[in-house]
Amino acid sequence: MNTVKIALCQMDVIDNKQENISKATSMINEAVSLDSNFIVLPEMFNCPYSNDKFIEYAEEENSSPTLESISKLAKKHQVYILAGSIPEKEDTRIYNTSYLFDRKGEIIAKHRKMHLFDVDVEGGIYFKESDTLTPGNEFNVAQTEFGKIGMGICYDVRFPQLAQINVKKGARILFYPGAFNMTTGPAHWELLFRSRALDNQVFCIGVAPALNEDASYHSYGHSIAVNPWGEVICQLDYKEELKTVDINLDEIKKVRNEIPVLKNKRNDLYEIIEK
Amino acid sequence: MNTVKIALCQMDVIDNKQENISKATSMINEAVSLDSNFIVLPEMFNCPYSNDKFIEYAEEENSSPTLESISKLAKKHQVYILAGSIPEKEDTRIYNTSYLFDRKGEIIAKHRKMHLFDVDVEGGIYFKESDTLTPGNEFNVAQTEFGKIGMGICYDVRFPQLAQINVKKGARILFYPGAFNMTTGPAHWELLFRSRALDNQVFCIGVAPALNEDASYHSYGHSIAVNPWGEVICQLDYKEELKTVDINLDEIKKVRNEIPVLKNKRNDLYEIIEK
Repeated sequence: MNTVKIALCQMDVIDNKQENISKATSMINEAVSLDSNFIVLPEMFNCPYSNDKFIEYAEEENSSPTLESISKLAKKHQVYILAGSIPEKEDTRIYNTSYLFDRKGEIIAKHRKMHLFDVDVEGGIYFKESDTLTPGNEFNVAQTEFGKIGMGICYDVRFPQLAQINVKKGARILFYPGAFNMTTGPAHWELLFRSRALDNQVFCIGVAPALNEDASYHSYGHSIAVNPWGEVICQLDYKEELKTVDINLDEIKKVRNEIPVLKNKRNDLYEIIEK
Repeated sequence: MNTVKIALCQMDVIDNKQENISKATSMINEAVSLDSNFIVLPEMFNCPYSNDKFIEYAEEENSSPTLESISKLAKKHQVYILAGSIPEKEDTRIYNTSYLFDRKGEIIAKHRKMHLFDVDVEGGIYFKESDTLTPGNEFNVAQTEFGKIGMGICYDVRFPQLAQINVKKGARILFYPGAFNMTTGPAHWELLFRSRALDNQVFCIGVAPALNEDASYHSYGHSIAVNPWGEVICQLDYKEELKTVDINLDEIKKVRNEIPVLKNKRNDLYEIIEK
């Protein structure tokens, strides 16, 4: 299939796991009622964005109430669900992990955030994910009935190398559930999604939690979809909202014919390699 | 020196080489009167942008009236001049080549456009540089008293790999004399310069010919300078104009401390390599 209706679920995330799962459930149900094929939740959709909460909310993959709920919904509605991310526990380590469920409710891919967000902007945001989290070490491209999709999470979008490798592996849509903040969001969020889309001539999609003024971390929201020409085709604002966007994957071929950037790359002179 | 006054000479380029050189001369003189340290001319500043003119206007490096003129000006005024580009002839081949002159008027670096512009946008621009030109095969980073600068030309800016390699070699300012057109300019020019600057946390500067409605190729103009935070700090419109922009290279360090993208790169997992 070359057309996909993608649902961007920009949900409020609060300090109550069960209510977050309920909110995700109701948004997924709404997305299904709008005929979505591919439903996307935000980064850390079941957990407030703070290091202490990552520890408190973390779940093991094989005994995760959150993942079980999402799996059932994917199976019940026969839709793909990219479950933004959750704090995933394995032994003593915690990862920021995104899971992709197919129409049968099976996990067909997962991505552990590869680049941890350690920033300290003068007069702006300070956050150090590496205090709590362990980074993932794998590139994750999943085969779906809409072709291959590339997985990343939030800060990963700042690294063109990840996108380049995922596209080299055949990804036609790059997903980055993410939670930029009120410093980096206005400055860089849209620019980064447009860059990754244009440079690689693919669709690029980001889904964020809504802004919660009561939380310690202020998410910028602004869930976004960008086409292979680098145009924003859908963007939300700060508040909780669900939007669907119809994309036609044939646009990739058209843009790549018009400006043959991938063909004109000088593979004889440089290469991005995976180690 | 960590501060540089860069002059963006967005000149009208017409179908008369001598007049183009005169125009470049008067703009360089004006830039000097404004205390510029580093003067930048547009891509193909001595030649209309068309394949037949590239052939007609091409000059050999060792007997080039254009380069001689620029060299004299650099020496006379003791300034750096990045001579956008000219059609350079070597044996039977023609290159689109950018030359960097130091304060003594010596050529300290040159860059032959590495990616040739072959595009065909439905209802928009059609142009095939490879009908006439030969691509360059070298990465060119030059040492100046302001640190290292990375060289590229126009379409080269679409390839993040070139920027990545130049930055890996130490470039702190990336220059792309360029002539985008009325299709790709509004769509991508600013986005690409902001991307290259933000992804690499460097300054990124593009200088274009002014729009000449009488020419066969319509340059978008919009010469631009972007800082390492991805902000446009100077942008012209379509018409002939000279603007200077003061940059402080210490900003690079500040941004790299705040969002340590280059440090957080996963060099253990991927690498851009030069072949």
